[in-house]
Amino acid sequence: MRVLVTGAAGMLGRKLTRRLLERGRLRGERIDAVDLVDLVPAPVESELCDVHVADLSRSGEAEALVSVGPDVVFHLAAVVSAEAEADFDKGMGVNVDGTRQLFDAIRLAPGVPRVVYASSIAVFGAPFPDPIPDDFHPTPLTSYGTQKLIGEALLADYSRRGFLDGVGIRFPTVSVRPGKPNAAASSFFSGIIREPLNGQEAKLPVSRDVRHPHASPRAAVGFMLHAAELDTSRLGGRPNLTMPGVSVTVGEQIEALGRVAGPDAAALIIEAPDPTVAEIVAGWPPRFDTARATTLGFTADDTYEDIIRAYIADDLP
Amino acid sequence: MRVLVTGAAGMLGRKLTRRLLERGRLRGERIDAVDLVDLVPAPVESELCDVHVADLSRSGEAEALVSVGPDVVFHLAAVVSAEAEADFDKGMGVNVDGTRQLFDAIRLAPGVPRVVYASSIAVFGAPFPDPIPDDFHPTPLTSYGTQKLIGEALLADYSRRGFLDGVGIRFPTVSVRPGKPNAAASSFFSGIIREPLNGQEAKLPVSRDVRHPHASPRAAVGFMLHAAELDTSRLGGRPNLTMPGVSVTVGEQIEALGRVAGPDAAALIIEAPDPTVAEIVAGWPPRFDTARATTLGFTADDTYEDIIRAYIADDLP
Repeated sequence: MRVLVTGAAGMLGRKLTRRLLERGRLRGERIDAVDLVDLVPAPVESELCDVHVADLSRSGEAEALVSVGPDVVFHLAAVVSAEAEADFDKGMGVNVDGTRQLFDAIRLAPGVPRVVYASSIAVFGAPFPDPIPDDFHPTPLTSYGTQKLIGEALLADYSRRGFLDGVGIRFPTVSVRPGKPNAAASSFFSGIIREPLNGQEAKLPVSRDVRHPHASPRAAVGFMLHAAELDTSRLGGRPNLTMPGVSVTVGEQIEALGRVAGPDAAALIIEAPDPTVAEIVAGWPPRFDTARATTLGFTADDTYEDIIRAYIADDLP
Repeated sequence: MRVLVTGAAGMLGRKLTRRLLERGRLRGERIDAVDLVDLVPAPVESELCDVHVADLSRSGEAEALVSVGPDVVFHLAAVVSAEAEADFDKGMGVNVDGTRQLFDAIRLAPGVPRVVYASSIAVFGAPFPDPIPDDFHPTPLTSYGTQKLIGEALLADYSRRGFLDGVGIRFPTVSVRPGKPNAAASSFFSGIIREPLNGQEAKLPVSRDVRHPHASPRAAVGFMLHAAELDTSRLGGRPNLTMPGVSVTVGEQIEALGRVAGPDAAALIIEAPDPTVAEIVAGWPPRFDTARATTLGFTADDTYEDIIRAYIADDLP
C-alpha cells in the first residue's frame, strides 16, 4: 500500500508521517511507500519515504504525484489563516486551485483512493448556537475558512460521483503546538501553555472567559488515521465531519496548566489585552456537539490536562 | 445607472430584462444601459440594451464586460442541473470557473457593484428536518448544487472583503415555466400545469404526496429586483438567502389546477411512475422556514393558484 501526504513538511504532516512509519500498516495492509510532498523538502524518516518538492496549484504537478497510484492520500497542504487573509491570491491558489488540481488528478487517474482532507472549524462563523450542532450551516468569516469550505464541497461531490473516496475532517484548534509563536490570531492558545512550560513569559491577549475547542497534535493525527480507515458507507453522503475537541475557556486552560506544572508556571502568563485579536477570536466557535464524529469512532483528548501532558511527552524540548 | 445581466437569453434573464426596462429605474436611479450577456444573443428589448455573446469561463471575457462599470450585476448564467450532472467538466467550467472569472473581474475593476447571484435550493440535500431552517447545512446531492454552493461561498467572501456587494438568492423550483418540457428531473412540476392549460396530456412520474416549494417566474424576478435594492448591511455577513416559496404537494398542485381551469384540465394528467425521477426528487427539499428572507422583505406568491394565474396572465400562448 502506498500513501501520499501533502503538506508533509508541516507540523502535522511530520507527526502523521512518523506515526504511519511506526505503525507500518494502514487499512489492514503493510505500508510499502510514503510519498511526502511539500513546497520545501520534508524530513526523510525512513527508506520508505520519497520526498517531492512540488506546488500542487501548478498544472501537471498533481498528475505526476498521483501517477504512482496512491491508495491513501492525506491532503494537508494549505496556506494558513493569517496568510490567506493577507494574500488573497495565494490563498485561493494553494487552498482552492491546489486542492482542485489534486482531486482532478485523482479523478483522471486509475483507482479510487481514500482521500483524507484536512478542513477546519474555520468554515464556521459567528453568531452561533451553543453547542453548535452537526447540521449547522458553515458561514466562514475568513478567506481561509471559505477556501476550506470550497474544498469540502469538492470532496463531497467527487466522492458522490466515485472519483475518490473522501473524508473531510474539520480540526478544532490544535494545541499545544510545538515551536515558536507565529502570526496567527490563535497562536496564544498554544503560547500560554508552551512558553510557561519552557520557563518563559507568555502574553494573553484575550479575556479568560473566551471558550474554544482544542485537540492535541496527537489527537489530530489520530483523527487522520481513523479517517483513513473508516467505512465511508457510514457517512450517508456527508463526508465532512466536525471533529470532537476539548472545549475549555482560557481560564480553564490556565487552571489545567497550574495543576500539571504548578502555580509558578501559570504565573508566567501576563495579561496583555489586544482588541484586534479579541475581535477575531470573538467570531470563532466556542463549542460543538460532534455527535456524528463521535458515533463514527473519532476520539479527542479527555481533558485539557491530557493535552498539556501530550505536549510534555511528545514535544517539550 | 448601468446594469449587467448574465444568462440574459434564458427564461428568467429575458423576463428580468423586460421588467427592468418597464420599471426604467433601479435603486432610485434611472437605468441608462443594460448589458445582456449569454452564449447566444439575447433578444434586444430596447435601445438601452447592448447584446454581448461571451463565455465568462474564458479568460478575458468577464474583464471586457465589467470594464464598462456596471452598478448592478445579475449573474444568472449557469449550466443547469441535468447538464452539470451529465457533463462534469462543463458544469465546473461554467458554474464555478465562469462565476469566479466574473467575480474576479469585478474585484480587479474600480467600483463595488451590487451583485445578485442566482443560487438554488439544490445546495441542500436530504435527509431534512421539516421545515428546513435558515441555518441548516447545505449538503448538495448534485454537481449543480455543489457548484452553486461554491459560488455562494465566493460571493460571501468577496462581499466580506469589499470586492463586491453581493446577495445570493436560492430559488425554489420555478414553475410554471413557459415553453416545452426539458430533460430536467423537475420538468414535470411545470408540465403537469402547463400542458393541461394548453389542452395537452401531461405525464406525472412521481407520487401525488411529493411536497416541494415553488415560485412563479414573476415572483423569481421580484426576488432579483428586491435583492438588487436591499440594504446589505442587514445581512449580517451572511448574504446567501433561501427564498420563500409556496410549498405544496403534487396533489395540491393538481387540485389548484382543477380550481383554476376546471376538472377537464386536471383530467389530462396521466400517472406514469418513473422510479429514476422519483428517486432524484426524493432527495429534494420539501419545505423551508425562510424567516430571514421574509424579514428582509422578499415575498413569494400567496398560493399555488396564484402561480397558475401568473402563468396564464404572463405566458399562456
